Amino acid sequence: MRAKRILVVGAPVIAFCLFGAMRRASAAPAEQRVVRLAELEIDPAQLEAYKAALKEEIETSVRVEPGVLTLYAVSVKGEPNHIRIFETYRDAAAYRAHLETPHFRKYKAETQQMVKSMKLVETEPIVLGSRLK
Amino acid sequence: MRAKRILVVGAPVIAFCLFGAMRRASAAPAEQRVVRLAELEIDPAQLEAYKAALKEEIETSVRVEPGVLTLYAVSVKGEPNHIRIFETYRDAAAYRAHLETPHFRKYKAETQQMVKSMKLVETEPIVLGSRLK
Repeated sequence: MRAKRILVVGAPVIAFCLFGAMRRASAAPAEQRVVRLAELEIDPAQLEAYKAALKEEIETSVRVEPGVLTLYAVSVKGEPNHIRIFETYRDAAAYRAHLETPHFRKYKAETQQMVKSMKLVETEPIVLGSRLK
Repeated sequence: MRAKRILVVGAPVIAFCLFGAMRRASAAPAEQRVVRLAELEIDPAQLEAYKAALKEEIETSVRVEPGVLTLYAVSVKGEPNHIRIFETYRDAAAYRAHLETPHFRKYKAETQQMVKSMKLVETEPIVLGSRLK
């Protein structure tokens, strides 16, 4: 009787733990993440159009690509046409796949004449601390 | 009878929606977020000690401070002593509170002699796209 009760209580707990373990296993380890920092200078006359294209590209990427983990775009205070984008991809395959998506290609084509310069800073993660969804 | 069934089914749905609305109301809007990019150069001879202190500081901050949303620390590829930290705080009050915490003060004191230079880039968020927890 007691053993049965333990089983009844225990089964959902075990199932929950197994589910958690499976989810963890399916996620790529943090060491495989590709993290890049893009530093862009935009033509001031086209800044609003650039920002609209960037917003659309980021919102679509995060919505439809499970391998795109962050695309945080900010402008430097006092220099609104200097943009930094903190990009995190699950792994190198997710990054390569992102470059081939229709929304990324559209963004690149649309903004080609708006970007005066771009520097891509490749990085190695040290610790990616976050409590954001 | 039918009305009762609707009530029984509907009550948890309404409760869930209200809970969602309350959670949303308690979170600060994204526009109030403080986002900064720290660019540091570390004394190469003390790099491992610096990284250990940084990891401890970030892990503690994210664990105990609800207002610390991201502390993503990376090094520039090929220049391991050049560190960038992408910092997001819920709002200005959360940022000020972070500076007063014992773990941040300990990190600052410990690493003071390890940091050769530091530049803080203040930013304005454009779009903070994320699917990370």
